[in-house]
Amino acid sequence: MIVYKDSEIYIETEESQVPWLKIFTQEPFRELGDMPKELRRRLWEVYDIVEFYMNFYYKPTKINMASFGNMLPRVHIHVMARFKEDNYFPNPMWGEKLRDTELKLPSQEQFHKELHKALSNQFTSLQADRRKSGGERRKRN
Amino acid sequence: MIVYKDSEIYIETEESQVPWLKIFTQEPFRELGDMPKELRRRLWEVYDIVEFYMNFYYKPTKINMASFGNMLPRVHIHVMARFKEDNYFPNPMWGEKLRDTELKLPSQEQFHKELHKALSNQFTSLQADRRKSGGERRKRN
Repeated sequence: MIVYKDSEIYIETEESQVPWLKIFTQEPFRELGDMPKELRRRLWEVYDIVEFYMNFYYKPTKINMASFGNMLPRVHIHVMARFKEDNYFPNPMWGEKLRDTELKLPSQEQFHKELHKALSNQFTSLQADRRKSGGERRKRN
Repeated sequence: MIVYKDSEIYIETEESQVPWLKIFTQEPFRELGDMPKELRRRLWEVYDIVEFYMNFYYKPTKINMASFGNMLPRVHIHVMARFKEDNYFPNPMWGEKLRDTELKLPSQEQFHKELHKALSNQFTSLQADRRKSGGERRKRN
């Protein structure tokens, strides 16, 4: 599911026990170093907001971040909220499963809504649909 | 083993079949978002150089990057050169081992030497030992 998109970036959900998002650039790049500096700066700006809201909303034990792209060599940043009682902790989500617990987490739908709002407010000028919402541009000032 | 250090950053090796480095900040931080912006900018500058030299020197199939810190909640960035014939590829290095091959790679010692030189040249003013090598400061101009 797409949680956010603009002309440079989009964010997808990954199906998992833990909150897990993937940040992609619209234009594909093999490695982080292949990306124009300005876009990389932008990618980390988006990452910051995702990390901040994940921390704020879920109060996880730790945020995990990774960029592999071994199957498909296209940079995308995984961002995961980890909890000491989740099935893999303290292993990475790609590691050995250690238990089988049910996590009680606040509504994912609400999290996606709040994150979308935060990103849209921050990056108004990059929203493809900015003309549909007349108030958006003024918020920047 | 410490491959590089200055007043803000140090880089350690991780024992593995593949070239694997860990970038730490001297001051510990729980999450990337807890780090002052300027230091984060610096961290990604160092990452860029590490990624560039790893790619240049080993010509790997893919660079992998990750930040977990679940055992010890202190941000550090893993940077790994991955090869399609390594023991875990295309799984992350934390995933299931898929084979048992011997990789023939160029000298790690030489790689560390070249990387150290590149980082030292780039960040001359942060080198604790800059007074020992009189030529370093002039290289900046």
